[in-house]
Amino acid sequence: MEPRWLSPEEQRTWRAYRDLSLVLEDALDQQLRHKADLSHLYYSVMVFLSEAPERRLRMTDLAEQLKIARTRLSYTVSRMEERGWVRREDALGDRRVQLAVLTDEGLTALEQAAPSHVATVRAAVFDRLTPEQARAFGEACEIILNGLTGPDRPAFPADLPWRR
Amino acid sequence: MEPRWLSPEEQRTWRAYRDLSLVLEDALDQQLRHKADLSHLYYSVMVFLSEAPERRLRMTDLAEQLKIARTRLSYTVSRMEERGWVRREDALGDRRVQLAVLTDEGLTALEQAAPSHVATVRAAVFDRLTPEQARAFGEACEIILNGLTGPDRPAFPADLPWRR
Repeated sequence: MEPRWLSPEEQRTWRAYRDLSLVLEDALDQQLRHKADLSHLYYSVMVFLSEAPERRLRMTDLAEQLKIARTRLSYTVSRMEERGWVRREDALGDRRVQLAVLTDEGLTALEQAAPSHVATVRAAVFDRLTPEQARAFGEACEIILNGLTGPDRPAFPADLPWRR
Repeated sequence: MEPRWLSPEEQRTWRAYRDLSLVLEDALDQQLRHKADLSHLYYSVMVFLSEAPERRLRMTDLAEQLKIARTRLSYTVSRMEERGWVRREDALGDRRVQLAVLTDEGLTALEQAAPSHVATVRAAVFDRLTPEQARAFGEACEIILNGLTGPDRPAFPADLPWRR
């Protein structure tokens, strides 16, 4: 059976998304490395931990929030421990469960990095779109994301990254 | 000066985009690895070369089309050469210019991988959105992308990846 190839308009949309995802990630990562000596992934780890009660999350929950594989998170947290930004703890009462904790040094690094990171996101995205365009963009992203992570997600060969 | 933090709605849009970019890239990459023993990046290299005259492009132009750094492309093409999918050539008349060429084996691998890849893109994106939503999504992606790559792009610390 001949596959349903993308129409020219779908193709154009798809390429714009694909190109954007690469260029924007590169810009954010470079900006954080330049201004704060942080990768974008380190920054995201700090953000999620800073928002959690007592600045700590189970490693499995942190991987799910970050949308990355647990092995990748484990490697990342080890590198961040060396910088003094994060430490690991055993969960109270269950030593099989590991927590990641944002240290005071980590919180300070996040607070120093946040203003210029937000300015970059604003300059790249929200200053370019009208409120209506931004709303439509967010809505489309949520629909696609929910489709990929929700109960009726397509039968992909692999499980979601944080469950592998 | 207090930074202009994102509003709750902007924050939600930004997180949806960030999460989507990670989950969708993972799904596409896993699907290609499972079905065709290819990474998503290898697949993209093959697509751009297959569309070029005589299935060949200058390495610098290919990096720009792919939106990746030239060092990363060089590494990727070396791996693809080992698989017999791509070969390098000196440009006619200018041995300082390197071309990447898609081999017959590479074209066959692309033709075998394409139907299930397109089906995944369709299931993940275009089957989920109404035509109107897809159009708005593509429009927003193009606006942000053009802002990041065009002449009035924000003063990021680093040049675009393919120019570094």
